[in-house]
Amino acid sequence: MNIKHYNQIAGQRIQRVESLSDNVFAVSATLLVLNIKVPVSEAIRSERDLATAFSALSPTLLTYFLSFITVGIFWTGQSVAFHYIKKSDRNVYWINLFFLLLISLIPFTTAFLSAHIEFRFAIAVYWLNLLLLGIIILINWHYVDKHSFLCVSGAEKTKVVKAIKRRVLIAQALYASGALLSLISPYLSLVVFCIVQLNYALAPFSKVRQIGDEISEQTSS
Amino acid sequence: MNIKHYNQIAGQRIQRVESLSDNVFAVSATLLVLNIKVPVSEAIRSERDLATAFSALSPTLLTYFLSFITVGIFWTGQSVAFHYIKKSDRNVYWINLFFLLLISLIPFTTAFLSAHIEFRFAIAVYWLNLLLLGIIILINWHYVDKHSFLCVSGAEKTKVVKAIKRRVLIAQALYASGALLSLISPYLSLVVFCIVQLNYALAPFSKVRQIGDEISEQTSS
Amino acid sequence: MNIKHYNQIAGQRIQRVESLSDNVFAVSATLLVLNIKVPVSEAIRSERDLATAFSALSPTLLTYFLSFITVGIFWTGQSVAFHYIKKSDRNVYWINLFFLLLISLIPFTTAFLSAHIEFRFAIAVYWLNLLLLGIIILINWHYVDKHSFLCVSGAEKTKVVKAIKRRVLIAQALYASGALLSLISPYLSLVVFCIVQLNYALAPFSKVRQIGDEISEQTSS
Amino acid sequence: MNIKHYNQIAGQRIQRVESLSDNVFAVSATLLVLNIKVPVSEAIRSERDLATAFSALSPTLLTYFLSFITVGIFWTGQSVAFHYIKKSDRNVYWINLFFLLLISLIPFTTAFLSAHIEFRFAIAVYWLNLLLLGIIILINWHYVDKHSFLCVSGAEKTKVVKAIKRRVLIAQALYASGALLSLISPYLSLVVFCIVQLNYALAPFSKVRQIGDEISEQTSS
Repeated sequence: MNIKHYNQIAGQRIQRVESLSDNVFAVSATLLVLNIKVPVSEAIRSERDLATAFSALSPTLLTYFLSFITVGIFWTGQSVAFHYIKKSDRNVYWINLFFLLLISLIPFTTAFLSAHIEFRFAIAVYWLNLLLLGIIILINWHYVDKHSFLCVSGAEKTKVVKAIKRRVLIAQALYASGALLSLISPYLSLVVFCIVQLNYALAPFSKVRQIGDEISEQTSS
Repeated sequence: MNIKHYNQIAGQRIQRVESLSDNVFAVSATLLVLNIKVPVSEAIRSERDLATAFSALSPTLLTYFLSFITVGIFWTGQSVAFHYIKKSDRNVYWINLFFLLLISLIPFTTAFLSAHIEFRFAIAVYWLNLLLLGIIILINWHYVDKHSFLCVSGAEKTKVVKAIKRRVLIAQALYASGALLSLISPYLSLVVFCIVQLNYALAPFSKVRQIGDEISEQTSS
Repeated sequence: MNIKHYNQIAGQRIQRVESLSDNVFAVSATLLVLNIKVPVSEAIRSERDLATAFSALSPTLLTYFLSFITVGIFWTGQSVAFHYIKKSDRNVYWINLFFLLLISLIPFTTAFLSAHIEFRFAIAVYWLNLLLLGIIILINWHYVDKHSFLCVSGAEKTKVVKAIKRRVLIAQALYASGALLSLISPYLSLVVFCIVQLNYALAPFSKVRQIGDEISEQTSS
Repeated sequence: MNIKHYNQIAGQRIQRVESLSDNVFAVSATLLVLNIKVPVSEAIRSERDLATAFSALSPTLLTYFLSFITVGIFWTGQSVAFHYIKKSDRNVYWINLFFLLLISLIPFTTAFLSAHIEFRFAIAVYWLNLLLLGIIILINWHYVDKHSFLCVSGAEKTKVVKAIKRRVLIAQALYASGALLSLISPYLSLVVFCIVQLNYALAPFSKVRQIGDEISEQTSS
């Protein structure tokens, strides 16, 4: 089997990991929408009653929103990662399966946090999910870097790997700080988590974003 | 990294957004089918009883139908849009993630409307969903146009962007008119919404359709 | 926009329809698995109790099986169809969206049939689903043939379109016969439906299969 | 229709089987996550109460974990298999549809085993699922080998087919041994099943893994 043929196979391999990932991400992102139940009650007799019943859904809607954003952050990250990964093997498969297992738990840990926001234990469970995701992302990068599965090489590779690892470590440092704040107040933790996640989704001028932009610039140059 | 390589990467990027989108669209389109429960009752003892029990499902079936059509309209729109978009970046990712978040809420807002059709508040919630979708589609077009992520250029680009934006604005004007009619009667609003959505799905000779055809003609010429 | 470029776009279009279809097919095929609940009861105290509780699941398992096979038949059919379709337009999109809407109803109509097998009305509902699917498949073929969206032409096109239409009509004739037998007994209908569906999935030597083989031979020659 | 064109069609065919598979795999892998319900109770008043309520979820979490890993093992296997399969026909479609039907039952049989671990009958049901999967994988390989649907030929083909078949047979021998141990104790069976599945997911130095590595070496050389 010649190199060209192998590359095609390797390409397909990556494609299947990405295809399975997109499915698991989509299911995970939309899973909590099942929790948003249409309020049906005999007591709803006026516009005001209905508005009240609807506003009672806000915690569920906010939880859905936070869970969707969190899944979206990791999807964006994995998506960028796979632009640089050109080969895979069975170990990459399994590293990514465990990654997806943790992704599929995000709706649960987010809902758990949302239902028990007054307890540090709920913060700890949510943070553990994010921490394990961070660890497995670093394992993945370490592995594909070591086995030369990347499509960049030399100084560019060093730059890309360093930038992405730094990005993950900064995010994890922010999550860990958020988790630690639960020693003062779990509500403070939640606020920090929400700000960090929204920042990744929205703020285009933050420090962390700039790192991402650096990478983009590298790839487009 | 040379231009050709970057284009491949950009292509994959778009592919992943489309792949995730198709998954979220499929889940959103089929979600309400879970609401259509097989009637099982001791009271069903004749063909007539069963027919009665089945006809009691019609509101649920109609809601499913309306939700599926609505999701289908936005899927068709996004699909056409992505024929013109050849590059993406992290911001395109997030614009589309928020778009998908709103898509995944369509089954809920449709079921909410269906359950509380006698109230203007339900019309307002459903319309807000459609309005936000329209706004985010315009943001997406504005962004990809500004950053030259389109595969067309010059006069053709101007024509395509103008035609698509006009299409979105006409649809939003129709939705807004429908929503305004709820001041007279919410039922009137529903009728207008249903006619507008069915028109997009079925009527090939409408004014709005002609705009779509203009675009098709441009692309095939 | 030159022809080559347009073909790429058209290719993507088909790809998105197929991608959305695979998602809706997968959701539809696996939906009824949610009905297979693990029996949990205080009354289960021996191997025999558990075996009895498990055997009580057989109707649910058989319904799942029949629904999966039925979805599989239409997936196989659509898959073969899309080998011949090289272009699409907005109408092909919508024809296929309505096709998928009917596919997503198969789990419901199959479960409805399974729950009320003693009534002709349940046979009628199930058959109506199959009939509408047949009609929309013929509309799709008629449309793509008329608009020259096929990748075959001349005598070969005539042969392929004729063979596929015949295949659909034969299947629909068998389904209609099955439905008519409910005038004698609904159970007889069910037996015929099951035999027909299993025949499509399993029997490689049936008449209908030979038509499929003819097409395969044409394409491989 | 010339050979090149046919290959493209055949490629698409394989692509659709893989696309449907990835969807069914993703749904099957994540299905049991619906069972992990956030504990909500008036009785949860302290960190300790919440930790207790959370730890009560461990059997559900472990079942989810085992189910996910099992689905992952078969996904990895199918993924490797499809690197060697370059053509397909209607029979390959149906062999794979039955394969997917069995995959979609894994969450149920795993949950059934988990709920009734003290009974041999539950072990038998779980093992039957794995056995049927093994049989259908062998049928698939036998079929694609016999019809020359593989992208390798000659001595390399013999080597690949032999190595993969041996891999399946070794796995099935381990599963059968695990099932037989239920004659001594069902708990012993479960332990063996868990060790075997974790070995496939984690242990890179096991005998079975070496076979996989042999194949990888062949393909990369």
